[in-house]
Amino acid sequence: MALNRKPILKVLFVVTALIGGTMLIPLIVSLLYKETEAAKAFAWCAIPMMAVGILGERLIPKINSNEIRIREGFFIVGVSWLLMSLLGALPFVIAGEIPSIVDAYFEMASGFTTTGSTILTDIEALSKGMLFWRSFTHWLGGMGILVLTIALLPVLGIGGQRIMRAETTGPTMDKISFTINDSARRLYITYSGMTILEVLLLCLGGMNIYDSLVHTFGTVGTGGFSSYADSIGAFHSPYAEYVIGIFMMLAGINFSLHYTAVTGGKTGFKAMLKDSELRFYVGTIGVSTIFITVMLLAKHFTSSVEEAFRLSFFEVSSIITTTGYGTADSDLWPLSVKMLLLLLMLMGGCAGSTGGGMKVIRVMIGLKAVKRAFAQRLHPKAVMPVRIGKKPIPESTISAVMAFITLYMLTLGISIFIISFEDVSFMTAVSSVIACVSNIGPGFDAVGATQNFAFFSDFSKILLSVLMIAGRLELFTIFLLFTPRFWSSDK
Amino acid sequence: MALNRKPILKVLFVVTALIGGTMLIPLIVSLLYKETEAAKAFAWCAIPMMAVGILGERLIPKINSNEIRIREGFFIVGVSWLLMSLLGALPFVIAGEIPSIVDAYFEMASGFTTTGSTILTDIEALSKGMLFWRSFTHWLGGMGILVLTIALLPVLGIGGQRIMRAETTGPTMDKISFTINDSARRLYITYSGMTILEVLLLCLGGMNIYDSLVHTFGTVGTGGFSSYADSIGAFHSPYAEYVIGIFMMLAGINFSLHYTAVTGGKTGFKAMLKDSELRFYVGTIGVSTIFITVMLLAKHFTSSVEEAFRLSFFEVSSIITTTGYGTADSDLWPLSVKMLLLLLMLMGGCAGSTGGGMKVIRVMIGLKAVKRAFAQRLHPKAVMPVRIGKKPIPESTISAVMAFITLYMLTLGISIFIISFEDVSFMTAVSSVIACVSNIGPGFDAVGATQNFAFFSDFSKILLSVLMIAGRLELFTIFLLFTPRFWSSDK
Repeated sequence: MALNRKPILKVLFVVTALIGGTMLIPLIVSLLYKETEAAKAFAWCAIPMMAVGILGERLIPKINSNEIRIREGFFIVGVSWLLMSLLGALPFVIAGEIPSIVDAYFEMASGFTTTGSTILTDIEALSKGMLFWRSFTHWLGGMGILVLTIALLPVLGIGGQRIMRAETTGPTMDKISFTINDSARRLYITYSGMTILEVLLLCLGGMNIYDSLVHTFGTVGTGGFSSYADSIGAFHSPYAEYVIGIFMMLAGINFSLHYTAVTGGKTGFKAMLKDSELRFYVGTIGVSTIFITVMLLAKHFTSSVEEAFRLSFFEVSSIITTTGYGTADSDLWPLSVKMLLLLLMLMGGCAGSTGGGMKVIRVMIGLKAVKRAFAQRLHPKAVMPVRIGKKPIPESTISAVMAFITLYMLTLGISIFIISFEDVSFMTAVSSVIACVSNIGPGFDAVGATQNFAFFSDFSKILLSVLMIAGRLELFTIFLLFTPRFWSSDK
Repeated sequence: MALNRKPILKVLFVVTALIGGTMLIPLIVSLLYKETEAAKAFAWCAIPMMAVGILGERLIPKINSNEIRIREGFFIVGVSWLLMSLLGALPFVIAGEIPSIVDAYFEMASGFTTTGSTILTDIEALSKGMLFWRSFTHWLGGMGILVLTIALLPVLGIGGQRIMRAETTGPTMDKISFTINDSARRLYITYSGMTILEVLLLCLGGMNIYDSLVHTFGTVGTGGFSSYADSIGAFHSPYAEYVIGIFMMLAGINFSLHYTAVTGGKTGFKAMLKDSELRFYVGTIGVSTIFITVMLLAKHFTSSVEEAFRLSFFEVSSIITTTGYGTADSDLWPLSVKMLLLLLMLMGGCAGSTGGGMKVIRVMIGLKAVKRAFAQRLHPKAVMPVRIGKKPIPESTISAVMAFITLYMLTLGISIFIISFEDVSFMTAVSSVIACVSNIGPGFDAVGATQNFAFFSDFSKILLSVLMIAGRLELFTIFLLFTPRFWSSDK
């Protein structure tokens, strides 16, 4: 059955109008900093986009509940992200600040997916307005992904949040709007609250409002774009490093838990602390931080225990949440530390957070399924459910999680193979792919903390952009669009 | 419940007697070459081992059917392999040809697991008798693994062969002996036939009988030990390269299929060609060979199409079967070729062959499970069995395969992390671990085709030895011995 174009077009027009509308904010920033060229570029994009978007949306009649089926849902989500990146890239090209459209597309795919990988060789050469927009896409992308994973994707049968739900919500329009409206309201409140709090704390520490905003966007969206080549290291402020380190960690936690904890009082907070995924996540951060602290002291990277702890905690928090901010050149650290960081990159943040990667809950289910397989060797006939907390996980969920983990590994394997046609080191090939699929930002070696992705061919940049979007949308959403079955006529 | 020591000790005594007995063969080789020191070392090991083994076995009364339960089965298999490697290492240490017991243990773990990784820096300095024994352990190990995977492990509920079996054989002693006797007979015939055929063909090509035997042992066992530093490249014989290339490929095929094909006439041969796993295996070899041929020509490693094809086919056949023989220094080849070879290393040979790795059939089931997960996104309520050929695979098997793949990745990740404490490159850390877990032999960079594992610390050598044995025994068998559940008193 062919796709129903009406709802698809309607949503894409809405996306266009929204992106146009949000460009008014960097437009104002450009005007404040008297950057005329940048302001013009934003105006030339914002106004036509809003006009076309609003007009187009109006021209398409109201959509009925039954016009968005699963297939349209997937198509809309996938193509929205591809389109956002393209629309977001236009101001950079028009203003000539990133002349190549492929480079600009890469940068915006990196922005909206909250990856933070950059093709910029001289970040500080860009105008304030453009850098603001670049970071603002992290904030928008983070919000978008929360709405998707907590409210929309579960309806389509994907996403981390779904994992913990026993009930399946049918894909009808009424339920979608209900779920979205309800969940989205909570998310707006939590996400905005976290944003305001971080900006305030950073300003209190002496950071100016522009830098506070830019780096808060990168933090709460777990993006990692900075307006400085030295990233967070540029501030030479332990205070800012602790604030950002802690807020990255918070942004990697399920936002539903944040809402419960904040609104539920003592009971809500206790419920949060009992969450198995959160415990595993915090435990991993703790153990990894201690390990790296010891390694940095042992290998004489610093002799101050506080500094070693601060560098380690910041790096672990930055990597596990897939943010990618840096306070040190982690590429110089020992191979064992880099290997640990690569493993954390694969895991990523909690489900329902703005973090990328495979998600903590999937890793937990994968580990427990392996553990069960051991037990089954000894007791072949016993029935053993896999439990998270005290909840038994349905077999269909386990099988979906295992398929996801396998697909993740497969995607990495094939992508590293393709990237290895470039004249790069093995570490560069491996870490650039993991950094993009898991939405981290920098990798190691030629794409390390002080390096960038500029040297890649256009082909590789496009591949990595698609991988960022695919990784952000939990792989299936994007890859499904490339399968014959999706386009075949059987229902 | 505590382990029943009687059957365990009985089997270990038998293993000791067998290893002692087989050492008479290299003892004869040493005498023929008038290598007195080596001959003495073999005699000093063989005679006490046979005496102790036979005596010990006699002293333990007959075992009843119910005395070997699953737990004892696992323990016997795991400890046998650990013990074989230790016993096999003694002659090297006694003769002083490999003075370090850790080095000798690594070499023998590598031999019996048919891995082929070596700590020898100057292979040709060893006596003929010792090099013969070193390669002979490949042959013994290959035979051992065939008996295990085709006859014994299925009874314990592990192993590739089981995957294709619908019925489960209960773990009773009668059935074990029946299955073993029946399957083992076929295996002896096929394995011995293949061995004799290859020795004859190599001799016909002008290779002397010693070299023919040594390299046939390495081929049919998919081991990869050579008596020359330049491996198969030392012969400068395209004929020998084609013969060994083809026999490696054959050794990577399920031996039950070989038996069917040879004894079943036209019908048997047709049945072999219809086997899905075989088709996937041959297809992968074909595509990979063509890709590498093109790359070698394009990158000017040779201008002869025949040579490029021969080098490629040999390397692909050597890697996918996890043999590890070389005709060229593949470490100099482009990164994309090395990446492809790493992926082939992970897959490995067919179930029921002497090859290592995850096994073709598991990769196929993993891929089909991912494919099904895609289809399920679009049709959430449909029931879709995973099929290999026309056979639907039971869900319990799929879930076991997915757990195995996840455990494989987990083992690699954690092991690479541990090895990365050594002062090595990322490629060395990654490829040395894959080479050992998948039982390949050489990896890349510092463990590349012209290099060896001598520089590793004793700790890493022991870890890699255990990984070779764990990989060879499909991970669960060895790792299970390290779990608390295995030793806990609940039944």
